[in-house]
Amino acid sequence: MIEDGAVKRVGVWLVGARGSISATVVAGHAALVGGDASPVGLVTARAPFVEADLPTLDRLVFGGHEIRAGALLDEARAVLDGCGLPGMADRYASALEATDGRIRPGVVRGGGPAIDGLATERVGAASDAEAVAAIRADIDAFAAATGAAHVVVVNVASTEPAPRPHPSWEDLDALDGAMKGPASILPPSALYAYAALDGGHAYVNFTPSVGSRIPALCQLAERRGAAHAGSDGKTGETLVKSVLSELFVRRNLHVLSWFGQNILGNMDGAILDNPDNKATKLHSKDHLLARILGPHVESRVGIDYVRSLGETKIAWDHIHFEGFLGGRMSLQFTWSGVDSLLAAPLVLDLVRLVAFAAARGESGVLGALGPFFKDPMGTDEQRLIAQDDAMVAWLRDPEGAR
Amino acid sequence: MIEDGAVKRVGVWLVGARGSISATVVAGHAALVGGDASPVGLVTARAPFVEADLPTLDRLVFGGHEIRAGALLDEARAVLDGCGLPGMADRYASALEATDGRIRPGVVRGGGPAIDGLATERVGAASDAEAVAAIRADIDAFAAATGAAHVVVVNVASTEPAPRPHPSWEDLDALDGAMKGPASILPPSALYAYAALDGGHAYVNFTPSVGSRIPALCQLAERRGAAHAGSDGKTGETLVKSVLSELFVRRNLHVLSWFGQNILGNMDGAILDNPDNKATKLHSKDHLLARILGPHVESRVGIDYVRSLGETKIAWDHIHFEGFLGGRMSLQFTWSGVDSLLAAPLVLDLVRLVAFAAARGESGVLGALGPFFKDPMGTDEQRLIAQDDAMVAWLRDPEGAR
Amino acid sequence: MIEDGAVKRVGVWLVGARGSISATVVAGHAALVGGDASPVGLVTARAPFVEADLPTLDRLVFGGHEIRAGALLDEARAVLDGCGLPGMADRYASALEATDGRIRPGVVRGGGPAIDGLATERVGAASDAEAVAAIRADIDAFAAATGAAHVVVVNVASTEPAPRPHPSWEDLDALDGAMKGPASILPPSALYAYAALDGGHAYVNFTPSVGSRIPALCQLAERRGAAHAGSDGKTGETLVKSVLSELFVRRNLHVLSWFGQNILGNMDGAILDNPDNKATKLHSKDHLLARILGPHVESRVGIDYVRSLGETKIAWDHIHFEGFLGGRMSLQFTWSGVDSLLAAPLVLDLVRLVAFAAARGESGVLGALGPFFKDPMGTDEQRLIAQDDAMVAWLRDPEGAR
Amino acid sequence: MIEDGAVKRVGVWLVGARGSISATVVAGHAALVGGDASPVGLVTARAPFVEADLPTLDRLVFGGHEIRAGALLDEARAVLDGCGLPGMADRYASALEATDGRIRPGVVRGGGPAIDGLATERVGAASDAEAVAAIRADIDAFAAATGAAHVVVVNVASTEPAPRPHPSWEDLDALDGAMKGPASILPPSALYAYAALDGGHAYVNFTPSVGSRIPALCQLAERRGAAHAGSDGKTGETLVKSVLSELFVRRNLHVLSWFGQNILGNMDGAILDNPDNKATKLHSKDHLLARILGPHVESRVGIDYVRSLGETKIAWDHIHFEGFLGGRMSLQFTWSGVDSLLAAPLVLDLVRLVAFAAARGESGVLGALGPFFKDPMGTDEQRLIAQDDAMVAWLRDPEGAR
Repeated sequence: MIEDGAVKRVGVWLVGARGSISATVVAGHAALVGGDASPVGLVTARAPFVEADLPTLDRLVFGGHEIRAGALLDEARAVLDGCGLPGMADRYASALEATDGRIRPGVVRGGGPAIDGLATERVGAASDAEAVAAIRADIDAFAAATGAAHVVVVNVASTEPAPRPHPSWEDLDALDGAMKGPASILPPSALYAYAALDGGHAYVNFTPSVGSRIPALCQLAERRGAAHAGSDGKTGETLVKSVLSELFVRRNLHVLSWFGQNILGNMDGAILDNPDNKATKLHSKDHLLARILGPHVESRVGIDYVRSLGETKIAWDHIHFEGFLGGRMSLQFTWSGVDSLLAAPLVLDLVRLVAFAAARGESGVLGALGPFFKDPMGTDEQRLIAQDDAMVAWLRDPEGAR
Repeated sequence: MIEDGAVKRVGVWLVGARGSISATVVAGHAALVGGDASPVGLVTARAPFVEADLPTLDRLVFGGHEIRAGALLDEARAVLDGCGLPGMADRYASALEATDGRIRPGVVRGGGPAIDGLATERVGAASDAEAVAAIRADIDAFAAATGAAHVVVVNVASTEPAPRPHPSWEDLDALDGAMKGPASILPPSALYAYAALDGGHAYVNFTPSVGSRIPALCQLAERRGAAHAGSDGKTGETLVKSVLSELFVRRNLHVLSWFGQNILGNMDGAILDNPDNKATKLHSKDHLLARILGPHVESRVGIDYVRSLGETKIAWDHIHFEGFLGGRMSLQFTWSGVDSLLAAPLVLDLVRLVAFAAARGESGVLGALGPFFKDPMGTDEQRLIAQDDAMVAWLRDPEGAR
Repeated sequence: MIEDGAVKRVGVWLVGARGSISATVVAGHAALVGGDASPVGLVTARAPFVEADLPTLDRLVFGGHEIRAGALLDEARAVLDGCGLPGMADRYASALEATDGRIRPGVVRGGGPAIDGLATERVGAASDAEAVAAIRADIDAFAAATGAAHVVVVNVASTEPAPRPHPSWEDLDALDGAMKGPASILPPSALYAYAALDGGHAYVNFTPSVGSRIPALCQLAERRGAAHAGSDGKTGETLVKSVLSELFVRRNLHVLSWFGQNILGNMDGAILDNPDNKATKLHSKDHLLARILGPHVESRVGIDYVRSLGETKIAWDHIHFEGFLGGRMSLQFTWSGVDSLLAAPLVLDLVRLVAFAAARGESGVLGALGPFFKDPMGTDEQRLIAQDDAMVAWLRDPEGAR
Repeated sequence: MIEDGAVKRVGVWLVGARGSISATVVAGHAALVGGDASPVGLVTARAPFVEADLPTLDRLVFGGHEIRAGALLDEARAVLDGCGLPGMADRYASALEATDGRIRPGVVRGGGPAIDGLATERVGAASDAEAVAAIRADIDAFAAATGAAHVVVVNVASTEPAPRPHPSWEDLDALDGAMKGPASILPPSALYAYAALDGGHAYVNFTPSVGSRIPALCQLAERRGAAHAGSDGKTGETLVKSVLSELFVRRNLHVLSWFGQNILGNMDGAILDNPDNKATKLHSKDHLLARILGPHVESRVGIDYVRSLGETKIAWDHIHFEGFLGGRMSLQFTWSGVDSLLAAPLVLDLVRLVAFAAARGESGVLGALGPFFKDPMGTDEQRLIAQDDAMVAWLRDPEGAR
């Protein structure tokens, strides 16, 4: 049975569906569709995206996987109160409850102890192949039930520890063979990616976890004609870095060191307090300065959990640079952002843009979506302005932009 | 008699020739030409400018006008010590003294009381026309004495109060008539610009004073085939603004207010402590946010003199913005720059680029040099990256860039 | 008729009774008395004040003067929403409405154009003496109606321009004579102070306006046995200064300059946008550094209105200091406070402490309350810790502390 | 033979005698004694210490232990250039060279791999007892050679890893027995402390290493009538904390979290890049907030090495607090200090004060010197103002202050 009889719906399958980003996505989507909020923070609401033929927001329908019990409405209350928006969750209770009814227990195979410790609902599986089949069945059932012609699977779950690469990752056939055994070959983020791409759905990795960044999964996407993009949403300190670093390049000023320190208090932060999970994150954040400024720059980035901050994420960066005649100068900044409010509109943007790309026949890695990511797949460009200019060109002509 | 027999010299005529920027330009030029310093901070030392056919630094020769007595070497000692470069001035004493020998007394007609109070050396003139003739004679004599085939006049003098526009500014013939009378029609910056352009020399306005930003002077430049550019070197807080503001545009974040406060301790600051002179500066600095972010932004910029800071210029900016669902967030930065070390390399860049443009036959306003200025003439573009991209295009093809 | 039959009530008469501080005081008081809030931010809730025999909060009853129409509940909604406490005003609607019923139109004689422009309700008076009589009649009627045995008048109105001192200010008899004429001799803050002290009530000046800081009014207080204290509540940047400056004194570090910039968005800020009103404020704020650090310190303080900030008041201070061997160093801080939430508990503290002092027979200026004020009357001590230590000593023994 | 025939000299024996603090102490002392510098940054140069009968600076004579080869003059050049004081080291070359002639190779037993890696000069010893005897012989020879009537041994060496406590630390006799065996019982800082105290000299621990903070060594000090003090000089971020935290206490504001991040580039920083050494430091820094603000405060402190900063140590602290009605506010500060210039005058202060105390017969732990230390021995007081007030009281009367 198809809900509501909608024929052109776009399904959004959220991995980590009761997390703070998902709650904000679902409530925020309801506010936008209901005309209660203006689309501030959505890239697709500005020119020229606003004039493009992207799926309208009212076509999106949400479901997802989650390993924690509880109600999405409760998570939305907690996160939106923490964002300074009390009362908002309850205004969109029916949308949150409807989505909650479409959430299924997720998998934790290979997620590491910090994530395993969170799990209260999980699907058992005797092999990675079985886990993938279970995930895929859930997604297909969601598509059927909602009449979604296309599904975009978005990973917004907690950051995994970096997995040890397995030799079979290099080749899809080898991977398929390995996944039939009892050993854990892929971490959860990659299991979801496999299931999505194998079903011909699109996959977006909004986290630094490995997701579809595995050669065999890239092969799978090509074979199935599925699109994917990632990784790690660029929402705060790294966003500022990717703009500000250009100042030094254009003015030929010599950056000596760039030190960044992040403090945050939500569950993302609590998970990152685990050293293995933190290492994955820091690797993703620390990429771009060397790329933009050159390898000589002494760069460090730290991230620490400060519970009292809740949803607020604060970053302090100290940039030490050399000018004319060797003079030493500095630039410091302090970013104070509300994490879920920065991430949620980008998730909506990505769903719309990926669905648009798939609809016009694109498959494989969508490198043009680089501006959304700290560690973009399919492009070496790390500078926000250049990334954004390239995305605008791609919007008009996917061939011309390459 | 021509000094040194050099035939392809580029003359650099500094207005405010014993000021801190001039002292740094002359000493820094000597350090670069002598191979003692690397060209950090020079835009023309980075790709693709470094490969272009710009005049080499060793071709530059310096002179200028000044209304204060004293030795350029003493100013260089004061400023470079204040920049954390003690001993440096004395290493380049001969270059500083040679330039000092080519400095002539300037004019103060119409400069206002703060500037008038500084003047100990000045050329009397019964009319603006007489003042222009005196200025021009000095520049021509400098060109003859040094064998400079081309002269670039650069205004690096203290900021003037905003003059009351005179009706004759709209038309060159009217202006020429008015300037013959005893009344002061043009402020000093415009008298120097008139003299430069009338002699077929190039003129660069590195200050927020009016300079050549007068219709009649634009006509004069076109008539004489002279190039000019300005105004107000973009060296610090405004430079950061012109990069950072794009972050909000590209991410469709709504900037509510942008407050900037500058504190500085050098003579530039002391002059700006005079409210009339400060008003000129603030007008120039406050342009770009409305241009980039739209007119709704509440923007304020302050500038105060704090003597103890000496050459260090510190700016604190607080940016208040709205994100998704109306969430309020902020970004603050503190810039700590050494003013003369930021300005001096840009003066050298401008001289090279203007001389290059003139050599390939360009005249009139050089809008392509916009990235150097807070209040660029000849372009509405205020975004640093777009300005710089356009300048690179112009370097390759002055026609194509338009 | 006496409301509620309470016999030991302390009346709190707020001048500026529909302003943001008043609204926060009344709603916050209701929250504390109702047991819904903990007394964070109240000095009298910490040791040793919490053990002293101060009037309990449930004994306070509120009324006041106001020149603007409107409902206190509406102001409370605006200010508490702006403080991130939505819904709170409505929870205490009955307390706010009860207080609103005890608010009477105020006087604007001599308040200057910025304040005059706000006024929609005012009491006319043909002389200062008449104005005082009208004010006093309102306060007396409030005392009678509420059965308040003692009234503390607290000035929390907008800052006035600095008045031109009148010769009669030096002597009470001369002042009394002058006030009978039609000319405006005293600004509104002093008219209220006169009325309060003349009626034997206590007077607290929480603003930088002149209030009771006039020799003739000090005589009046002594003559009537009335207590008074002021001026200008120390809630933010100056509070930090009065603690942090000691670091440099104790370590014998030489502060070269201390620059402070405040930005704020509430009505206090809008009024301070008027240069005359701002001058009064800056004078009050700029006192203490010279007092603590010595007169050689270059100190500047700015204050600007940035509407988008609402109730948030942000201050950036840059302290430049010299250490051993002349080394230059700096300390910067950014304070981000919610103005009304910082001020309101201090108003409650002051009422309790002044009522306590009056009850044990103290009159005249209460210098021991110095820690609450930017520009304390009755003491030269500006250092917060020393002020607070002295206040603790006074609490135990008013004689011993002198 | 006694150098120079001085009879009342105070010997200063620096452990880490070719480090940056030592170099700054020796050069700075020469500048002060020579009348070239004013005593900014010396606590003992302010009232009332300046009037007390402390040994004058010209009576101090320096020597010490060091495990690195090289010349003290070279270290002074590097550190003072890095402090923005070029040329200064050479002006005091003779003082630096004279001290260098009195530096002897140190011990590294039990210092851990990071410190061991630095050592190029070391004294071998078959037991801790032998190491102590060798150290003591060097100090005694220095006293004899310089005619120093009293020697103050000051630990300014790199931070050691926290040692594993040995059962014999609890009792001097047990310790003496254990130290005769081949095993390493005490880390180097405690070996130096033992030698100093055993010889009746004073010992000051300016580092977070264990030093004399061992019960058996406290017994030794009492038995020999020797004075000691420590530990960990309070020069930067912690100094600010120990003042600023009082603001919240006095105003009854509830600090939720206090996050501090230090970045520094000198050898101190390089050593602290080793996790074991860093742990010792962080333990010492993190003490005081719980003590001043209570155990509920969420506090974290980080320290990272950023080579480009050289002698500059920058700390960013973010303080999150709750005010009236639960309102959330914040205070941030950025400290930018020159480490050696902050530490060196305190070393001179400590030597003078310890020598003064010893001269009037005090022995054991000098708790009154608490204001100098992050982790003061002999007192639980962590608030700078209270510590300093107590030290002033002690100066006048060592009994009264207890």
